[in-house]
Amino acid sequence: MTKRIYNFSAGPATLPLPVLEEAQKDFVDYKGAGMSIIEMSHRSKQYDAVHQETKAAVKRLLNISDEYDVLFMTGGASTQFAFIPMNFCTNGKADYVNTGSWSKKAIKEAKIQGKSVNVAASSEDKNFNYIPTSFKFSDDASYVHITANNTIAGTQYKTFPKTKAPLMADMSSDIMSKTFDVDQFGLIYAGAQKNIGPAGVCLVIVKKALLETIPEGLPTMFSYKTHAAEDSLYNTPPVFAIYIMGLVMKWLEANGGIAGMQKKNEEKAKILFDRIDKSDYYKPTVAREHRSLMNVTFRLPSEDLEKKFITEATAAGLSGLKGHRSVGGCRASIYNAFPKEGIVKLVEFMDAFEKAN
Amino acid sequence: MTKRIYNFSAGPATLPLPVLEEAQKDFVDYKGAGMSIIEMSHRSKQYDAVHQETKAAVKRLLNISDEYDVLFMTGGASTQFAFIPMNFCTNGKADYVNTGSWSKKAIKEAKIQGKSVNVAASSEDKNFNYIPTSFKFSDDASYVHITANNTIAGTQYKTFPKTKAPLMADMSSDIMSKTFDVDQFGLIYAGAQKNIGPAGVCLVIVKKALLETIPEGLPTMFSYKTHAAEDSLYNTPPVFAIYIMGLVMKWLEANGGIAGMQKKNEEKAKILFDRIDKSDYYKPTVAREHRSLMNVTFRLPSEDLEKKFITEATAAGLSGLKGHRSVGGCRASIYNAFPKEGIVKLVEFMDAFEKAN
Repeated sequence: MTKRIYNFSAGPATLPLPVLEEAQKDFVDYKGAGMSIIEMSHRSKQYDAVHQETKAAVKRLLNISDEYDVLFMTGGASTQFAFIPMNFCTNGKADYVNTGSWSKKAIKEAKIQGKSVNVAASSEDKNFNYIPTSFKFSDDASYVHITANNTIAGTQYKTFPKTKAPLMADMSSDIMSKTFDVDQFGLIYAGAQKNIGPAGVCLVIVKKALLETIPEGLPTMFSYKTHAAEDSLYNTPPVFAIYIMGLVMKWLEANGGIAGMQKKNEEKAKILFDRIDKSDYYKPTVAREHRSLMNVTFRLPSEDLEKKFITEATAAGLSGLKGHRSVGGCRASIYNAFPKEGIVKLVEFMDAFEKAN
Repeated sequence: MTKRIYNFSAGPATLPLPVLEEAQKDFVDYKGAGMSIIEMSHRSKQYDAVHQETKAAVKRLLNISDEYDVLFMTGGASTQFAFIPMNFCTNGKADYVNTGSWSKKAIKEAKIQGKSVNVAASSEDKNFNYIPTSFKFSDDASYVHITANNTIAGTQYKTFPKTKAPLMADMSSDIMSKTFDVDQFGLIYAGAQKNIGPAGVCLVIVKKALLETIPEGLPTMFSYKTHAAEDSLYNTPPVFAIYIMGLVMKWLEANGGIAGMQKKNEEKAKILFDRIDKSDYYKPTVAREHRSLMNVTFRLPSEDLEKKFITEATAAGLSGLKGHRSVGGCRASIYNAFPKEGIVKLVEFMDAFEKAN
């Protein structure tokens, strides 16, 4: 049996073992084609089947209507930060909600392009440890941008704000972890490397009607229209990353779909938060109602103890528990593919560590 | 033993079997880490070793001096078409040589950005079946752009033009296939999926002095400066594609390096061109002195025979011989990893087909 450690990394992150095993088995000779999936023309029938089936599974899982296009893009969420104002900030004004580092980066890219940004709400006053509940949206914003889950701060929207302007969401760290209604959104994007695949592909779900508003004259690769018109095959797509995403979709469908994931994710997070809340030794950094089910952040009584905790946990096969370098502390990222057993093991370790230190 | 067909695809294309086998072996449990390479944080020690070693191998193989940065980017050559004018067309003027479809796309992107393009030479008059030998470069161009090898037309520069302005080259389809002096260039870029890896990563080699000329205020992800300053780790890089590129670099070093590849590539192309030139049945599309060693293009007496040729070749385990949809005919792409035995087999097939048809 393959040795597996419990990988709490924030991303790239744990993927389902059956996905890895299938990809390994088929890697050199893809389903009898006599070549690897990474050697195949992106115009071949075999790859096209992967491309179409991955897209169809995304649509089934998220119950996406035909009013939306599903795209596979590259450059990660960081590139989407620039593409969104470039494509959709048609009147030069946009609303952003600032809930942490990634929101700030998105805002920065809109400003670089000379857009007038209205920060409709911010949780910066309390170091991003909550999700704002009241918003001052403009009357004339081209769109409203939010970060659905804050990987670094460990906060997550439980419901999304109602907006007049199209709502654009960075869902990199919680897409497909819980059910939600895609129809609320103008555009959703998600770097794959947390919940739905490896690094190298960014899933984009965009309302077709919005594509019509994109200005002409953008560089070809920077326009969502190009990718929608060419079914994400204008140029060579990141074949392997899309293939793995497809296997993850298959795994999701075989494991209860998004509703099934949500149930498991709530259960997993509860085990960990209950332990954190049990004693004063571990301190949660986020108020109960805004806690992320994906990135569980907590502190220990001192930075020295945090260091010791992380080192000893790593030695015990619990890897990736260090908080983001910008905030410190501890963080357990427990995405869809992270197994409950790993959380049980972490809780046991936390009990023992508290007793010993 | 794994079944392997001979894959003449223009890209994504054949990769060395030892590379595929090593990646397969290590896929689920990367060198005892207890996780896959695609599950690993891009800030981990293990991935950093892959990143640094891949970069170092690229520098060794191409004998790149410290005056250059080596970057791993995404979005393929198509995105570079837009980045180059955006970053380097500082006075609004650039020279381009037009040697085919990809050159035209590069020119189009410069024009979209409002740049004044001087086409210093073109082979469009003869359907791109040669490489121009005289050039009308401007005195004040910001740079000169060329396409080193024309995947579709089957032509290739044997020597590069001397230019006053920095020379920028798209080497997607012949990088590392023959020795050349990097010092002639301001910037070189290459989508990996032909000679050096899978789709999903684009290798960029850029003169450090040129980075200083990049205007401030570009979107963060669109500036080469960002990627150079952060060692291609500003955001999550396409981990798996870089890892495979690293394995290909290792294979190149173990197989005689670039000089060794060149010798083999010349030998391989000679076998095929000798067969094409042997009778009038197969017609080369390119004059002898401009023929690409990577993409060997030829026609048969009729389109019907070409169709039959491709179908029967595929059935005989010789896949991907169809010419690009924009030009028709036949094309054998024989990049570094394509084995000589496959060419011998193709020549035998060509002999038999000519006799029978």
